[in-house]
Amino acid sequence: MIYLDNSATTKPFPEAIDSFMTVATKYFGNPSSLHELGMKAERLLEQSREQTAFLLGVKPNEIIFTSGGTEANNFAIKGAAIQYRQRGNHIITTMIEHPSVAEPCRQLEQMGFEVTYLPVNEKGIIDIDELARAIREETILVSVMHVNNEVGAIQPIEQIGQLLKQHPKIVFHVDHVQGVTKVPLDLKKAHIDLCTMSAHKFHGLRGAGILYLRNGIRLSPLLAGGGQELQMRSGTENVAAIVAMTKALRLSFAAFEQKAAYLFALKERWIQELAKIADIQLNTPAEHSAPHIINFSLNGLKSEVFVHELEKQHIFVSTTSACSSKKRTPSKTLMAMGVDQQKAESAVRISLSYENKLEEIPVAIHAIQHAIQKLKEVTR
Amino acid sequence: MIYLDNSATTKPFPEAIDSFMTVATKYFGNPSSLHELGMKAERLLEQSREQTAFLLGVKPNEIIFTSGGTEANNFAIKGAAIQYRQRGNHIITTMIEHPSVAEPCRQLEQMGFEVTYLPVNEKGIIDIDELARAIREETILVSVMHVNNEVGAIQPIEQIGQLLKQHPKIVFHVDHVQGVTKVPLDLKKAHIDLCTMSAHKFHGLRGAGILYLRNGIRLSPLLAGGGQELQMRSGTENVAAIVAMTKALRLSFAAFEQKAAYLFALKERWIQELAKIADIQLNTPAEHSAPHIINFSLNGLKSEVFVHELEKQHIFVSTTSACSSKKRTPSKTLMAMGVDQQKAESAVRISLSYENKLEEIPVAIHAIQHAIQKLKEVTR
Repeated sequence: MIYLDNSATTKPFPEAIDSFMTVATKYFGNPSSLHELGMKAERLLEQSREQTAFLLGVKPNEIIFTSGGTEANNFAIKGAAIQYRQRGNHIITTMIEHPSVAEPCRQLEQMGFEVTYLPVNEKGIIDIDELARAIREETILVSVMHVNNEVGAIQPIEQIGQLLKQHPKIVFHVDHVQGVTKVPLDLKKAHIDLCTMSAHKFHGLRGAGILYLRNGIRLSPLLAGGGQELQMRSGTENVAAIVAMTKALRLSFAAFEQKAAYLFALKERWIQELAKIADIQLNTPAEHSAPHIINFSLNGLKSEVFVHELEKQHIFVSTTSACSSKKRTPSKTLMAMGVDQQKAESAVRISLSYENKLEEIPVAIHAIQHAIQKLKEVTR
Repeated sequence: MIYLDNSATTKPFPEAIDSFMTVATKYFGNPSSLHELGMKAERLLEQSREQTAFLLGVKPNEIIFTSGGTEANNFAIKGAAIQYRQRGNHIITTMIEHPSVAEPCRQLEQMGFEVTYLPVNEKGIIDIDELARAIREETILVSVMHVNNEVGAIQPIEQIGQLLKQHPKIVFHVDHVQGVTKVPLDLKKAHIDLCTMSAHKFHGLRGAGILYLRNGIRLSPLLAGGGQELQMRSGTENVAAIVAMTKALRLSFAAFEQKAAYLFALKERWIQELAKIADIQLNTPAEHSAPHIINFSLNGLKSEVFVHELEKQHIFVSTTSACSSKKRTPSKTLMAMGVDQQKAESAVRISLSYENKLEEIPVAIHAIQHAIQKLKEVTR
């Protein structure tokens, strides 16, 4: 198997699964229970919070554990909008956000908020001057993703943070789901108020995510109830998944520079080899793009059929982001980048992890060439 | 170890952990991915949905998987209120709901909704005539729990359903977290529109819950995004936890009548033995109460110290619901039942599961007597 769909989900680290198992079996107590079983679970939870905070360079009480990235994004966007609605009703985001940011924004529009969706250039990057011009008296929230999930474009988060530093009443949220453990981001230096991460994108298990919530920022709880997670996110804590996520985060950050260099080398080689294939047009920009996402178009050939051709060789790629795969609408990021519709409809995404090998490339390239050949024959 | 805190959380079934492991290891694909790995995960997800629906006597497309009970309750309450806000702004609930129902109601009050909190009698049961009188033209939602988490009182859900059947514009939500697999409830017969369940209360794993969403009812998504779970609950599906929950639900429902009879016998014996202890006053009503929850007061002794005394003997009980344990406020259910504050402050909850044994009773009773003796000595 050659798994090239790591931006959809990653294979969990065996160490993360082991941690999960141990906690689920031996430390199954409810962290809110007063007795010893509860206290042991609570201790594991707090150790996870401390370690996660340390790895991200923030304080333990700035880490809120959620059920995943979608919850963290919904919590950040709707929680900030509702909390600060007295300040104003204007939100700024981009045209290329993940649906878990874009859809909450649409829900808020129905509730009377106004949302500005910033366009991107042909490289998938927003114009920081345009962002500056979009800021109004009523702006309460700016949400910009770090690494785009469809093409890998990297937004200038630090610059945006510098700009927003002059507007202390605007909450700055960053969707870092595709970036964390792949593209460095200093949350403090970038003046980020809220930042979303998801365990299963870095070899953790599903069911856990992180919302960094800077001290001083308040949110209206999305999941209100028993008051867990510093009164911010209720529900019995999924300690096993949180401990597993912390393990995966630690393993991913270990020897990070070497791994990042390796991933860049891997991507370079992939791009070199793909560029040799006549029917392939690269969509991922050469600059300001992440080391693990490569998007290309198949010269009008149907990318869905292509995905199925490759799976016959146990090679797994994606047409677009996983959650848009079945909608059969062209990639919204590519459309926003000005790629024409036919090209957007024939797009394919390869997404790598540190677990991918250089040796996979010739095998996969051969299969890609074969699949293109077959599709062309069928089409004619 | 004698674990008597099953209403806080249960020890996962080994079979549920095995299912989780298998899925997390072998079927880790994203169900939204088009390729074979994704499709295998999607098939497991849909099989789980079908089996869950079958076990609950509803249709597969009426089952929405969530991250747990708190999410399902927040989704039901806030999702219905926001969806139907054009119809009216009045909600009816009770004074003894779990915080994951009560807190969303308070959030809605801050947003302009009006909430009626029905009182309960000395047995912890609401008056159905009082509910009928509380209904107004603007009432859009009624939320009543099935089994109370603190004392085990069972509300007359079927009667409420019959009453609300005459008000087709009112959405009827039931928090069934403490009831499912212990106290039978026919969702269709009771005319329930929305019903919440949580895996870790019936020996599943944390990270999965169920919202039954009757066909014809719409909710504004709490977790908006990629459109998973029939467009109702976005986020990459936690397939491993969902498969494990389905396994736990199936195992719990197998030989249900025998198990229910066993649990009632267990509770009877517990109550007989507890009644012999002079310093114990039972709070759980003899009638209309669940087979697994026993609440009693310690004649003014500090229940928190009592919990810690028992844990020395590896016996785990609770002062109140887990999420309220650390707040040191008296049980709101007991207060609503008219129990005096001192008695409410010395309350202890024992919560059973099918895994508890008759042989545990004499051991635990001996430890309870010993603990009471010790506390009395310390107090004097």
